[in-house]
Amino acid sequence: MNLANFIEDHREQHLAELYEFLRIPSVSAKSEHKPDIERAARWVADKLRAAGFKKVEIVPTNMHPLVYAESLEAPGKRTILFYGHYDVQPAEPLDLWTSPAFEPTVREGNLFGRGTADDKGQVHIHLKALESLQQVNGKFPINVKVLIEGEEEVGSVSLWDYVQKNKEKLKADALVVSDTSMLAKGVPSITYALRGLNYYQIELTGPARDLHSGVYGGAVPNPLTILTELFAKLHDKNFRIAIPGFYDDVAKLGNAERKALKSLPWEKKDFEKAVGAPGYVGEKGFSIVEQLWTRPTLELNGIWGGYTGEGAKTVIPSKAYAKFSTRLVPNQNPQKIAKLVEKHVRKLLPKTVICKFELLSSGKPWAAPFHDPIFATAQAALQKGFGKKAVFIREGGSIPFVTQMHDTFKVPCVLLGFGLPDENAHAPDEHIALENYFGGIKAIANFYSDLGTL
Amino acid sequence: MNLANFIEDHREQHLAELYEFLRIPSVSAKSEHKPDIERAARWVADKLRAAGFKKVEIVPTNMHPLVYAESLEAPGKRTILFYGHYDVQPAEPLDLWTSPAFEPTVREGNLFGRGTADDKGQVHIHLKALESLQQVNGKFPINVKVLIEGEEEVGSVSLWDYVQKNKEKLKADALVVSDTSMLAKGVPSITYALRGLNYYQIELTGPARDLHSGVYGGAVPNPLTILTELFAKLHDKNFRIAIPGFYDDVAKLGNAERKALKSLPWEKKDFEKAVGAPGYVGEKGFSIVEQLWTRPTLELNGIWGGYTGEGAKTVIPSKAYAKFSTRLVPNQNPQKIAKLVEKHVRKLLPKTVICKFELLSSGKPWAAPFHDPIFATAQAALQKGFGKKAVFIREGGSIPFVTQMHDTFKVPCVLLGFGLPDENAHAPDEHIALENYFGGIKAIANFYSDLGTL
Repeated sequence: MNLANFIEDHREQHLAELYEFLRIPSVSAKSEHKPDIERAARWVADKLRAAGFKKVEIVPTNMHPLVYAESLEAPGKRTILFYGHYDVQPAEPLDLWTSPAFEPTVREGNLFGRGTADDKGQVHIHLKALESLQQVNGKFPINVKVLIEGEEEVGSVSLWDYVQKNKEKLKADALVVSDTSMLAKGVPSITYALRGLNYYQIELTGPARDLHSGVYGGAVPNPLTILTELFAKLHDKNFRIAIPGFYDDVAKLGNAERKALKSLPWEKKDFEKAVGAPGYVGEKGFSIVEQLWTRPTLELNGIWGGYTGEGAKTVIPSKAYAKFSTRLVPNQNPQKIAKLVEKHVRKLLPKTVICKFELLSSGKPWAAPFHDPIFATAQAALQKGFGKKAVFIREGGSIPFVTQMHDTFKVPCVLLGFGLPDENAHAPDEHIALENYFGGIKAIANFYSDLGTL
Repeated sequence: MNLANFIEDHREQHLAELYEFLRIPSVSAKSEHKPDIERAARWVADKLRAAGFKKVEIVPTNMHPLVYAESLEAPGKRTILFYGHYDVQPAEPLDLWTSPAFEPTVREGNLFGRGTADDKGQVHIHLKALESLQQVNGKFPINVKVLIEGEEEVGSVSLWDYVQKNKEKLKADALVVSDTSMLAKGVPSITYALRGLNYYQIELTGPARDLHSGVYGGAVPNPLTILTELFAKLHDKNFRIAIPGFYDDVAKLGNAERKALKSLPWEKKDFEKAVGAPGYVGEKGFSIVEQLWTRPTLELNGIWGGYTGEGAKTVIPSKAYAKFSTRLVPNQNPQKIAKLVEKHVRKLLPKTVICKFELLSSGKPWAAPFHDPIFATAQAALQKGFGKKAVFIREGGSIPFVTQMHDTFKVPCVLLGFGLPDENAHAPDEHIALENYFGGIKAIANFYSDLGTL
């Protein structure tokens, strides 16, 4: 049986198995899900064995386990390292899901559930592509190393520690990742740049305890108000970040790249339909695509404090909290930016509150040229999977591992994404288009197969 | 047995009974506590019967029941209407309570628990003072009407409806309320002014759904940021409220009153010890006492939106929320202020968000002269209860009912408070000083008794 027919014949079986994976609520941010995280790691290890890997390891770490597998039985052939993650974002707010987050459901050609797009669905594409190659040919066409982590959504600390200690073991000719999106439906895409990410949390303390707003209101600092005044000062009128030095190291976009980005089949109306806001705002002087992919941001990701329940409570709270993040672009240095942000936040705050400032995670931006022949192979394989020519794009999200691997091993990083920008990664009703899941298996199987002929 | 001895002999019994009352979690803001609210109303009715009231009614309303009782068996004597409330504020945040909110506990001469000071403990003072008079004399020295509501913490809507429909029934020569504080420990106090209160909630909607901050950050409106920018514009540098027209109707404080307030035994160090903030802020040009009692405020009481759990979630949320309130002073009109606030909020918001604006509750400010002889009687009775001369004070909190009764019946309102400003009403570790609870029973029994001799 040939590869294409084998994959076609196993569609239902592949999908049923993906359901199993998606049903494990492997939320890395929440300690209550620790047992689920462990279960997801074991599930991945089992499927790697079933795919034909003889060496499969579950690596304990200080936080969540890594899964590593390798098959080095193709002498003279290239070695690739495939990276993915089995952890997922929290599913909250639960009441906004049409069907339960951890009960995969198909509606109108899309598979809904937390992790469908980010990143379990995409990891599964590779597992099934490899398994198909093994089943059809009795072996893998290339040497393959696989590293699947459980901390991608919380900063990948253990992963990086592991990489540093296992440089020789992980060495490969190229890194392959599927944790990104296609530019649009029907436009297979290879991502050549990602933004970096610093994620911060602050806690402001004003009064030592919650106070009655009648008895004390008018003569005490309200940390909620002070929090709002702080964040109101972090952008200027042109939606630029008002932190001294923040833009100092931002690389200027070349004219050729600006032109290439402009010529992509990117549609503003699709973007606005996906977002659904009453109006739009972004940094002055840049196109939306440039704002999303090439410019740094500062975003509030969560705020809370005081009474947030039903009805009224007349309280001046002791504490106010915010989670916020900066997306970073080449050549910003995350550590330097974190220092600038903390320094400016502390400078802006009045003496009436105490501020606890934490950097929860940090990841570098990444951008790379794509001259290695592996990119042409990838482009051709995507065309075999989807019947359309693949484009080269940047992306606004962050995969710290890509930068780290690129910096460490100096090898090409090939980012083949099968999600779509409007598939609600990190939000309720996350989903993946079934045509991209099945097309992805076909494309990746061809990619690995074609790499064996280079 | 004389009155003083009777009260002294029943200290333990009174306290044990108060424990029962405090153990009922009658939180009016939360629908899950509806059965507790009903239970608290029945408990109050039972105790009124036990105190000697033959006519006791539990009045159903659209929300939480009222308890009404009357004893009109003292012909030729004055009639007072005693008002209080059996509902309490929510106990959250629960983890900040030293002992559980609904398990009363004595530590260092203070009784801790939700409702100890606001207002169950103070209502109980009156119940036990009346019961003691009945037990000692076989009758009440005056005519007494009692109205105890269950919606004080959520706007007293049903109460006001009831009062409007029962003006003749509720008619009295004076209104007596114990829901305020003494100026300080050992300083018995009569309150002659209260601030009014408007409580608002807003919901801002930007994107139609939660978005990944990597994929969308930089080109979409973030409702959290817009919320902070809104509230940062509502105060000016002098901590005045920056809403056009907000101060138009604020009554200017006379020199005599400013002087009287200044001469009160109010200690800044006690205030700062109670608050425990690293620094203080208030409207320029006014003393702290004036800021707290005579000036209007705008306070954020709660904000929330986005991810507020453990760890990191890189989301741009669809919605952001705030609860906030304005404390009002004579002669501000709550309805007029609500319109000014909403108009200005809508004006400040950009077109990139949709705003839902709600006025959750509204209550007028109140200030009254104290010429009626009942005030002298009250002052003398407080001295009998506490052995110290009582002072006349204002207070920053709000009891909408007082204004409404004053406006409706044009009778003196006597506010005898037995709480203390640092007893954490509306906050964790709410408590009442036992000496004020016991002193209160003695003072109130004397007050009612002396009123019978006028």
